[in-house]
Amino acid sequence: MTAPAYDPENIFAKILRGDLPAHKVYEDEATFVFMDIMPRGDGHCLVIPKLAARNILDVDAESLAAVARTTQKLARAVKTAFSADGVTVQQFNETAGGQVVFHLHVHVIPRFEGVALKPHTGQMEDQGVLAANAEKIRAALAA
Amino acid sequence: MTAPAYDPENIFAKILRGDLPAHKVYEDEATFVFMDIMPRGDGHCLVIPKLAARNILDVDAESLAAVARTTQKLARAVKTAFSADGVTVQQFNETAGGQVVFHLHVHVIPRFEGVALKPHTGQMEDQGVLAANAEKIRAALAA
Repeated sequence: MTAPAYDPENIFAKILRGDLPAHKVYEDEATFVFMDIMPRGDGHCLVIPKLAARNILDVDAESLAAVARTTQKLARAVKTAFSADGVTVQQFNETAGGQVVFHLHVHVIPRFEGVALKPHTGQMEDQGVLAANAEKIRAALAA
Repeated sequence: MTAPAYDPENIFAKILRGDLPAHKVYEDEATFVFMDIMPRGDGHCLVIPKLAARNILDVDAESLAAVARTTQKLARAVKTAFSADGVTVQQFNETAGGQVVFHLHVHVIPRFEGVALKPHTGQMEDQGVLAANAEKIRAALAA
C-alpha cells in the first residue's frame, strides 16, 4: 500500500514557513521546537524536523537523528525548567496511532508525581501561559 | 539534583546478559528488541540500547541515535507484520513520567482503527502468542 503524500498545507508546515504563529522554544539546522497549544501538561512542547515528513514511517534518517538529539535536549530542559519529576515522550503515527497533524512531531511533556496527563488535543491554553512556559524552557536551554 | 545511578540488576539488563529469557525480535551492534510481556496491543515491542542508560535524560548520543534508527525500523516492520493502521511510539522517563523499568526503552505499538490501548503494565500475555508475534515481526524485518 502506498503511503499518503505529505501535505505542505498542514499547520506545522505553515508554522515552519512563518505563515502561522507559534511559541518558539528552540531551533537548529534540522529541527524546530514550539509549545503545544493544547498541552497535556504545563510545558508540553513539540519537536519537529524542518524537512517534510509525515511521521516516523517516512522520515529521512538524518532528520530522525536530529529529532532524537533535540528531543533529549528538550527532555532535559523541561525537567529543569519546571522542576519536573519525570518526562513523557510520545510520537504518534497515522490516525489510528493517535496522529492529528501530519508533519512528524515528538511530544515532550514534563511530568509531576500524582498529576495525570490531560487528554490529547484537549483544551486550548492561554497564550500568556504558553509564552511564559516557552520562556522558562528557553532559559533552561541557555543555562 | 544528582540523577540516580543505573542499576545493573534491572530486568532489561538481565535480558541483555541472557540471565532472563525474552522473545527476541531484532538485534544489532547497539540495540536489542524484544516483545513486551504485558502488551498494550498485539505486537507491542520494546527497543533498548545495549549500553547502560536509565532513560533519555542520561543516554549517550550514539545509543540514542541507534535507538531512533531501530525504532523506525520496527515501526515499519510492525505496521507490515500486523497490517496495522498506525503505530504509537512512547518513551517514559522516571516514575512520574510512566517509567517502570530503569533501562531506557522505547515502546513500539501497532495500532488499529477503533482499538484503544490496553493499560500500561496490565495483563501478562500468553507466551505462545508472544512467540508467534515475535516471529511475525522478524519475518517482516527479513522481507
